[in-house]
This record gives sequence, C-alpha cells and structure tokens, in this order.
Amino acid sequence: MLSEFDLIARYFVRPSHPKNRAMLGIGDDCALLAQQSGMQLAISSDMLVEGRHFFAGADPFKLGHKSLAVNLSDLAAMGAEPVAFTLALSLPSVDETWLAEFSRGLFALADAHDCELIGGDTTKGPLNICITVFGRIPVGDALRRDAALAGDDIWISGSLGDARLALASLYGEQRLDADTLEQAAVRLHTPQPRVTLGLALRGIAHAALDVSDGLIGDLGHILKRSHVGATLNVDALPAGPMLQRQSPELRHRFTLAGGDDYELCFTAPASRRDDVLGAALAAGTTVTRIGTIDAETGTRLCDDQGRPISLQLSSFDHFASP
Amino acid sequence: MLSEFDLIARYFVRPSHPKNRAMLGIGDDCALLAQQSGMQLAISSDMLVEGRHFFAGADPFKLGHKSLAVNLSDLAAMGAEPVAFTLALSLPSVDETWLAEFSRGLFALADAHDCELIGGDTTKGPLNICITVFGRIPVGDALRRDAALAGDDIWISGSLGDARLALASLYGEQRLDADTLEQAAVRLHTPQPRVTLGLALRGIAHAALDVSDGLIGDLGHILKRSHVGATLNVDALPAGPMLQRQSPELRHRFTLAGGDDYELCFTAPASRRDDVLGAALAAGTTVTRIGTIDAETGTRLCDDQGRPISLQLSSFDHFASP
Repeated sequence: MLSEFDLIARYFVRPSHPKNRAMLGIGDDCALLAQQSGMQLAISSDMLVEGRHFFAGADPFKLGHKSLAVNLSDLAAMGAEPVAFTLALSLPSVDETWLAEFSRGLFALADAHDCELIGGDTTKGPLNICITVFGRIPVGDALRRDAALAGDDIWISGSLGDARLALASLYGEQRLDADTLEQAAVRLHTPQPRVTLGLALRGIAHAALDVSDGLIGDLGHILKRSHVGATLNVDALPAGPMLQRQSPELRHRFTLAGGDDYELCFTAPASRRDDVLGAALAAGTTVTRIGTIDAETGTRLCDDQGRPISLQLSSFDHFASP
Repeated sequence: MLSEFDLIARYFVRPSHPKNRAMLGIGDDCALLAQQSGMQLAISSDMLVEGRHFFAGADPFKLGHKSLAVNLSDLAAMGAEPVAFTLALSLPSVDETWLAEFSRGLFALADAHDCELIGGDTTKGPLNICITVFGRIPVGDALRRDAALAGDDIWISGSLGDARLALASLYGEQRLDADTLEQAAVRLHTPQPRVTLGLALRGIAHAALDVSDGLIGDLGHILKRSHVGATLNVDALPAGPMLQRQSPELRHRFTLAGGDDYELCFTAPASRRDDVLGAALAAGTTVTRIGTIDAETGTRLCDDQGRPISLQLSSFDHFASP
C-alpha cells in the first residue's frame, strides 16, 4: 500500500512552480514564503467535512475544485491576489483513483489562479479537507467588512440561488427535471471564485465579502461590523438561470437565503457606478445593484416599487442546522 | 444552542493582542498579516484526528496544548520565531465545557510563545483539529533538512521514548505502574516544542527537523534530502527518565523508533560543539551528541565501543499503521 510519503510524492508534489514562490516547499518542516515590504498577506482557512459540505461519494475532481474554490473566494472578497496554499487531508483509506481525480481538480483551479501548493499534512481518518490559502495585497487596499458607509450602493456579482436549488433537489425538498438539476448543480459543485473581480474592485469598493451562507445573513456581517443598515430590492436580486424558472416564492427564498453562491457582495459610493461596471466588464463578470446602505441599522426588504416586503428567512449556521 | 458565530466569539476571540500582528483578525473573510522585507514566513499545517493522533475522550486542555505544540515544533525545527496561527475545528457537537478547556490549553501555550490566533473555521463533523502556524525567519537563516554535511555531528535535544512508552502502556503492549505511566504520559499529551532552542541554533546548526515519527525514520529525511548517511551510537541516545528504567531492548526500540517525541534532531560542524552546548544552555534544554553524518548513504547503528548493531525497526506511517 502507498505510504504517506509516497502518496504526497505521487499526487501532490509537482515540478517546481515557474514563479518559485515557496523558497522551500513540500518536504521540510515548514514551507518558506518570501515577504515583500508594503504588502500584506491575506490568510483564510476553510475545512470541508463529508456529509456537511459535500455528499458522501462526491465526485473527487469537483471536490478538489470546490475545496480550493471556497478558499480563493475568501481572497477574492478581500481583493487579494492568490499566491499559495497548504492542504491538510484526512482520508479513510488510500484510494488512488480518488486521489488522482481530487488532485487533478485541485490543481486545475490552482493553476488557473496561479496559486502554488506549498505544504500540508495527510493522515488517516474521516474524510476532511482543510485548505489554508495565502494572498497578497498592498497595505491599505483590502476590501474589509467594516468599511461600508451610509449611502453606498450594494452590489452582487453573477447570480444567486442555483446552488441552493440544486441542493433542494438533492435533499428531496424540490422536484427538478434531470436537465435543470444538472445545470444548477454546476454552481453547487464547481463554484467559480470571483478573484479577478475582487482585484478589479480595489480602490473602488468600500466593503466586500463572499456570499457562502446566504445573502441576508452574510450581508449582515458587513452591516454589523460597519455599524450601518441596508435596504434591499428583492426584485432586483439576480436569480440563477435555473432558479428564474421557479416560483417567485422559491426565487425570493433562494436568492436571499440560499447558500454556496460564492458571489461577491460589496458596497461602493454611488459616484463610482461607472467604475464598478467597468471593473466587472474587465473581470468578465456581471454585477447587479441590489440596494443601499442606510445609516439606520437593520435590513429592510422592498420590491421594485419601493414597497416594504416581509419574509421569514434564516441564514445557514453550521451547528444550528440539521 | 450556541451558533457558530457565538462559539467563535465566546471561546476564540480575545482582547486585542498587545503586538497586534494581525492588521485584521477573526471576523473578516481573511486575516491580514504585515510583511517585512528581508524576512521569510515559515508555514506549517498539522491535522489531528480523534482515534489517530489522540484517544477518544482525550483531556481537552491537553489536546488544546498538543494541537498547537506539534505545529510550534515544526517552527522550532526551522529556527523560526512563532507569530500567529489559524485554527480549523470540526466538532461533533457544541460542548461548552470541552470548548472552554480546549481553548484554555491552546491559549496557554500560544501565550507562552507569543503566538496569536488570527483566524480559522468551525464546523460540525467528526472531531478534527487543523492548525496552520506562521513563524518568521531572516532570509537564509532557516534550518533546512537538506543542509547536513559529511563530518557533521548529529545532536538530539532533551530525551526520547517516554511518549512511546506511555502509548505502549495505553495500548496494552507494556505493563507500567500508575506512577510511571502518569509521568511518561506528560510527554505524550503535553509535548514542549523546542522553539527557544531552534532560534538559538540559527547560524550554528546545519540541518534540523523535529522528531515526531521516530528518530530513525525522521533522521532519514535529513539524510535523503542532504544525500548523506549517518552512524548513530545507540548507547548514546538519551532515554526519557521513565524509559531508562525499562529493559535495554525496549530502550533501544523506543529511543530509535518511538514517536511523539517532538525533540529537535540537528547536525552541526564538529568545530561548533561549544556553540551548540552554549545555545542549549541558553535555551534551558539539554542536548546530546548521538552520531556523525557520513558521506556514505544509509544509517549504521553502533554501540559505545563503535561495534555495529543490527536492529529491526520501523518508523510510523499514518496509513501503513493500524
């Protein structure tokens, strides 16, 4: 059977990265990363657990993609440029087919974002994938959660709710035809982190975060840390192409409190609307203006006509949920 | 029940660290760490799994200590100064007593080494603790595994084998009286990372690593990466105080191929013996000269008289072992 060292050598050690960012990579006690003055290192860590963040038996290629994607999405939300990551992996057994596919999916996304695997750990245990990602950002340029100002526009990238729609079908909450499910599931299993958009929004956006647990709950983090409130136009929320075909009730629910969207929600001064649209164009991503930051705390929902709407919604909590 | 956010706020967010290293810590998409030119960031990630790295029902205070200790030990082995760490935690349920004790043990060691928690993740799932630790080190000063030279002395810090002896008793392989087990188990459950020694060895030692999977196997990593061999004096290996009372056979086996020692094994030129001893004195740690690096590859074992010894030993492998 493959030993821990053989496993790492076979599936995770690659020819030297052209940029050679890790002055010392896999195989020593630590990886060494060069530091640059005037730059900050942005660090984020996400742990994915079988049965919680993905189904048992999930496609390993897609899982490799998603494990890194959710971390890159955190870098995107700060406006940080991906540099490197570590991977800690707990595996119930050494399944070489699984490992080959997982590492293929992982490195396909890593290469697309020029992000180098510089170290990690492997062990035997229930399937668990923990990635810590490193990005760089000039001092003062980070898109923080505490920087929203009253009067700011609220924007969202791409579209919302298709991942949650796929999940609803897989959970048996919602019946979908096979074709709809297949298309919606692309958003659930292989989210695309908005790294280019995050970089383009430096100097334009005030606050930003990535929407992973549902728009309302995640926007709440910006509001709380910025000591402001918001008015959201529920009719303006961009639903994913599959969710658009569903009932208005489902559309409201899954755009506002879906989950697994990995879109950027950000605020920017109304005076910078053209710059926001320009940044989105350069990044090849759509962006939609969905509301306004208010001095008054709390979140108010309204329709296209500005009429108040009341909805019962809850955000995802990893412990409170079943 | 405590939500994910309440859990983090209650047990893991602390008053601002006096050094304020994280320009932005827990609660945003990423933590931000300042960079200094001329310095490298040393990064290591270790994942601890219940039933693999610790027993089910392990004392949470000691587990908090050990989870960080094994990571700090990797920094020590590079000669890096601890700066910060992230913690990703998968918990089967929210047990507040457990969390209070775990975080107390974690922060006691973190504070002792001035190492700041700057971010992480919590989720529901089988108990799994993944820490990624960050240290700093001037460019060129790292104690690497590939830097051993023929003629170097081989040194080991502290003593070996008491952790393995405790494990042998807990596994029922070896009968120990309660008092001996209790004392040996201190080494198993609350290892002390040799951070101060690692720093003191900068500029003196050539190669270094921390011994976690057994001396023979771990020294093998230095030999392989440095393209050299070694002769070890088995009689010179410093056994822990509890192991010293056991049979010579057990003493040989557990000093050479124990595990969980978290001592530093390092090489240094014979001309620097006084400096090595001075560094150990300054660090409050004993060090013992246990052999020599040879140009000829392979590891040769001998006794105090230089007579060859043959032993059947195996190092720990996380997948090959039961």
